[in-house]
Amino acid sequence: MSVGIEKNKSGWPRIVLASLILFNLYLSLVPSIAARTVKETGAAAVPALMPLPARVELSGEKFRIDEKFYAGGKDRPGSRAFKAVARFMTRLAGRTGIFLEQDFLADQTPAASTRLHYQYERTGRLIPNEDESYRLEIKPGRIDLQAPTDLGIIRGLETLLQLLSADSQGYYFPCGFLQDQPRFTWRGLLIDSCRHFLPLEVVKRNLLAMAAVKLNLLHWHLSEDQGFRVESRTFPRLHQLGSDGFYYTQEQIKEVIELASDLGIRVMPEFDIPGHSTSWFVGYPEYASAPGPYRIERGFGVFHPVFNPANPATYRFFEKFFQEMAALFPDPYFHIGGDEVEAVHWKDNPEIQAFMKKHHLPDNHALQAYFNKEILKILTRHKKKMVGWDEIYQPGLPRDIVIQSWRGTQALVDGARQGYQGILSNGYYIDLCESAERHYLNDPIPPDSPLSEAEKKLILGGEATMWAELVTAETVDSRIWPRTAAIAERLWSPAEVRDVNDMYRRLKIISQQLEENGVQHLKNQPMMLRRLAGTAPFRPEEERALQALAEIAEPVKGYARHSQGRRYTSLAPLTRFVDCCFPESLEARDFRNLVEVFVQSRKWDRAAVVMDYFIKWRGVAAQTKALAGRYPVLNEIGPLARNLEELSTLGQEILIFIQKGEKPGAEWLESRKKLLEELKKPRAECQLAIVPAVEALLGWLEQDKN
Amino acid sequence: MSVGIEKNKSGWPRIVLASLILFNLYLSLVPSIAARTVKETGAAAVPALMPLPARVELSGEKFRIDEKFYAGGKDRPGSRAFKAVARFMTRLAGRTGIFLEQDFLADQTPAASTRLHYQYERTGRLIPNEDESYRLEIKPGRIDLQAPTDLGIIRGLETLLQLLSADSQGYYFPCGFLQDQPRFTWRGLLIDSCRHFLPLEVVKRNLLAMAAVKLNLLHWHLSEDQGFRVESRTFPRLHQLGSDGFYYTQEQIKEVIELASDLGIRVMPEFDIPGHSTSWFVGYPEYASAPGPYRIERGFGVFHPVFNPANPATYRFFEKFFQEMAALFPDPYFHIGGDEVEAVHWKDNPEIQAFMKKHHLPDNHALQAYFNKEILKILTRHKKKMVGWDEIYQPGLPRDIVIQSWRGTQALVDGARQGYQGILSNGYYIDLCESAERHYLNDPIPPDSPLSEAEKKLILGGEATMWAELVTAETVDSRIWPRTAAIAERLWSPAEVRDVNDMYRRLKIISQQLEENGVQHLKNQPMMLRRLAGTAPFRPEEERALQALAEIAEPVKGYARHSQGRRYTSLAPLTRFVDCCFPESLEARDFRNLVEVFVQSRKWDRAAVVMDYFIKWRGVAAQTKALAGRYPVLNEIGPLARNLEELSTLGQEILIFIQKGEKPGAEWLESRKKLLEELKKPRAECQLAIVPAVEALLGWLEQDKN
Repeated sequence: MSVGIEKNKSGWPRIVLASLILFNLYLSLVPSIAARTVKETGAAAVPALMPLPARVELSGEKFRIDEKFYAGGKDRPGSRAFKAVARFMTRLAGRTGIFLEQDFLADQTPAASTRLHYQYERTGRLIPNEDESYRLEIKPGRIDLQAPTDLGIIRGLETLLQLLSADSQGYYFPCGFLQDQPRFTWRGLLIDSCRHFLPLEVVKRNLLAMAAVKLNLLHWHLSEDQGFRVESRTFPRLHQLGSDGFYYTQEQIKEVIELASDLGIRVMPEFDIPGHSTSWFVGYPEYASAPGPYRIERGFGVFHPVFNPANPATYRFFEKFFQEMAALFPDPYFHIGGDEVEAVHWKDNPEIQAFMKKHHLPDNHALQAYFNKEILKILTRHKKKMVGWDEIYQPGLPRDIVIQSWRGTQALVDGARQGYQGILSNGYYIDLCESAERHYLNDPIPPDSPLSEAEKKLILGGEATMWAELVTAETVDSRIWPRTAAIAERLWSPAEVRDVNDMYRRLKIISQQLEENGVQHLKNQPMMLRRLAGTAPFRPEEERALQALAEIAEPVKGYARHSQGRRYTSLAPLTRFVDCCFPESLEARDFRNLVEVFVQSRKWDRAAVVMDYFIKWRGVAAQTKALAGRYPVLNEIGPLARNLEELSTLGQEILIFIQKGEKPGAEWLESRKKLLEELKKPRAECQLAIVPAVEALLGWLEQDKN
Repeated sequence: MSVGIEKNKSGWPRIVLASLILFNLYLSLVPSIAARTVKETGAAAVPALMPLPARVELSGEKFRIDEKFYAGGKDRPGSRAFKAVARFMTRLAGRTGIFLEQDFLADQTPAASTRLHYQYERTGRLIPNEDESYRLEIKPGRIDLQAPTDLGIIRGLETLLQLLSADSQGYYFPCGFLQDQPRFTWRGLLIDSCRHFLPLEVVKRNLLAMAAVKLNLLHWHLSEDQGFRVESRTFPRLHQLGSDGFYYTQEQIKEVIELASDLGIRVMPEFDIPGHSTSWFVGYPEYASAPGPYRIERGFGVFHPVFNPANPATYRFFEKFFQEMAALFPDPYFHIGGDEVEAVHWKDNPEIQAFMKKHHLPDNHALQAYFNKEILKILTRHKKKMVGWDEIYQPGLPRDIVIQSWRGTQALVDGARQGYQGILSNGYYIDLCESAERHYLNDPIPPDSPLSEAEKKLILGGEATMWAELVTAETVDSRIWPRTAAIAERLWSPAEVRDVNDMYRRLKIISQQLEENGVQHLKNQPMMLRRLAGTAPFRPEEERALQALAEIAEPVKGYARHSQGRRYTSLAPLTRFVDCCFPESLEARDFRNLVEVFVQSRKWDRAAVVMDYFIKWRGVAAQTKALAGRYPVLNEIGPLARNLEELSTLGQEILIFIQKGEKPGAEWLESRKKLLEELKKPRAECQLAIVPAVEALLGWLEQDKN
């Protein structure tokens, strides 16, 4: 932060957050391709903090890092903070290549030589509303990290690592003062281990990445129609017959909980009932509403199998099952799903119909409410607070439950007005391949919220949801990261932090740093592209062309992949070109910004850069068309490559019109608009993310008065 | 294999192995950079089998693969072969993108529609000399895979997957007949989890990769001066105090053993005693030869701490400890290390000296022999056969022990002549960053072996050894793969299979395929290079330049990294440029071949290609020099980049001499030879792998008579 900031030797120059953002905004307006021609500037030295802390003041001075960098606190080996410091030191050494002298695994006792001092008052509890704040003071000779709880230490160390900077003399931390605490206490990531089983290491590496952006809750979706994923000792047929052998042992669950605890992350299990429950009934059909036998579901959607709420044995089953799971998962909250219940089997079962009459339950909603009340009693006996999706809401529930909204903020508002706590997931469905921007601007408490201050306190936060219909261990990281870091910032940073361009600038840097934690969101793409070549490896220029196509192609959004002509199941391959593409093309975003700058500035050197892109993409189109003809698995990208060719040609035509100062005729314009509509259609389950920029260029050509 | 092979409709045309190799040799003589300008040929369709099966006959016909490809055997879900077929189907779908119809996780009962039929007689046992043979018959409409044991099915499925080919009509298996069995029964990979702890997933993904090249033994090095890596319930201070918290729980060990068993891989533990044992004594100093306290060793080398063989309590300790471990690890063999015992603490301990006198033990070797005999008794009581390094050899040991030779084939010969079984590891030390060629040509029974046929049977095979002083979870895969695939071929394929060029041709393809198993040997390099940029990400052309430098730089060989000015410890960063480099530069090898072809052919179009390389590398040198100046962690590569600049300049000078038909003067030659000696010196702990090719070029210029 040394650039453009006046130094003041007589104390902290108070560079407030606003000016930081403005400065970053300036930087972010220089698109990356343009930056290639810009000479080295101090811009490289601006640290990318994400989530942005509540208060950052940098002095312009530098704390230099060398081999003698020692960390110390009044702590004991094996404590959570001690281990966090050890991880910090390992990562610091890893990023800088510095051979740190301290044996930080064995001893962090402060000594005269200690440079990083950490101090906390007590061990934080892994519950909502626990104190996660910290205070970081960096002077040229000493760093102090202080926090009420060790959770604050864990959070602060991530910030300190993000501050790591370099100049020609070496590595340093910019000096300054930071005070930070989260805006929301419930900052979660839902991982669905059911639609596709995700091996333990996937969960573990994502926990590390979550900690890097200060998320504090893993919502673990553990049962579904497609699989029951936890070893049950009381009802072993659940995992034995309901998982194809793909489940977590209880020891593995404990490993995850232990790692999460080390990182200051809660682990809340979800067992989705009474619907979404086919896999339970493969081993235990007697608790279903229709007679079996049942098979593990391979398709995706909402299915008929549902627990029988009229059978007293069902509740005895859950009594025992939740007793077992309540002991396994220490979190005070327990998620019972409750969403999307299909009532077909209830209607078809005369005993259930009789039961409804007898208990004056007029409809299926009332029947589910009855079921939930019974489940609530069981959970309460086992000292768990209930969490569920929107559908669980009903009058008369205790006030300590939490409603998770997949439906929207209005549901949260309604709940809060009734005094219920809520968390937002609508708008954070990262499986739908939407932009980081869209998630980023989605606020659990939007600026125009009608809630009172007291009611707002009931909105605990939000959760990104990684539903796993279309991901495997290979691709799931790229669906989670880096976009979830933007959601993490929304949930941690002050509400005013909403600068989208600056978010993207930082996101690119954070995205690369996240791979340090083992997540594979970036590095798996080239590997997966290479695999498409099979036994005839691509030539380097072919590989580059395919990668260039992948960089501007996005999987179709929302649930559209299910209507592209192929029936996806949990056994279908997720290794095709579309699976190699990132949910959001950052290059397309850069390009859109570049077109914007050109349109606003009308400078010809900008047009040349835009033209360069089109020339590049025509080449990419030609090469990938050729690949499509030669590799069977790539046949499907032929039409996508042809679309890119047409789109690039159109872009060039528009630029030539502009260059010549000519206006196109109405017929030409009409035909090109139609063409653009054509080019928007999905090909190979992808869309070309640069279409909107070309559309904007065409619109400008049409409207331009010059 | 359809190219250049005459079809014969009236039966199998018998294309014997020799002709296969000759054909592949022809292909391998076309260097890859030259191939870029070669038009599409059938070459792309030649499957890369590795290890090469004992007998392969291809008919030129094709078995076409589509959605209706069903697999079936008389088998039950959950059996080892059933699971192997399920994995095969998943990988087949993954490589081809084909939506297979069969629910192969639930049912593989043969039906009329079944295309792949598998059949085995019995469950194979995980012991040496078990039958792993298989027979694969591929006809246009049906595939039969037959084997005496399910191990053969597992091996055969890997071969079938390697046969997968593609043409313009889609994917197919080439039809033919294969009969295959291993040459050696002991085909191992040693993984050292001690010098650096390797998380469970590292071990698991490497097991999958091992299975892909038909290795059948994981030799798991679990205790060392630097760490004790297994949970012990009888002596919990072993892992509690001896591991910094980095150890495998017994549940995790069981997971590894279960996965290995599914893959037909044995897991043999090594607990290295009486030396290499510092970490044991942190918790149990009473069994050491010198009083404590002990600390976990951070450095590398051979250290003084050693068990006290004169203390009866030592043997009581091992009795209990091995009882626990013998139950945990089902393999009949148990490795006790026994290498590199330092006797300093024995000499310094008067009780030990008195003990030696009393028992007529004249020297330390005799003392260790005494110790080993006691240990052998314990192992025998627990029904384990002893394995150890060369040093355990002593007269009078039972004939069922196995000696693992790190010293060389002569030691094996000596052992065999005494009737002892042996395995070779000398020459398979993959941690030393030698070439695949060197390992490949290293034969446990070389053609000139003086052993009788009966004695040869005592040579059970060999093991690649992945010692972990200089690797982490991020880099270990790139030190194991792909070179270990070459060792796997040496141990599996017939002794006559020794064509180095053909091995490399296949190795490149197999290397890419291995990543399907999760190993990260290729994909981690770009990630690690990116990380060197820290918060100022490289521009794309900078990243490419750095990668190009990494592609021709190799870490210094042998143990030379320890004498380059930095003291490595288990806490030192292994994230620098040298760690990003592969042990062997395949590009440098291609280049050497290219130079060879030019020198032999004297064709000018070849010279132009060589010149192109030098031009490229001068550019790479200029760009990476600039990076070295701007990124602190890259400072050290400045001299390496400068060396590349000088080397490329020299290469260009030589080519110009040749082009002009001029001979250089003696003084020039002398100075350039001196320069080459300079350029061979390590920089940034790396060497430029293209120096020998330039040296060859210079040598040819000097000797050429034209």
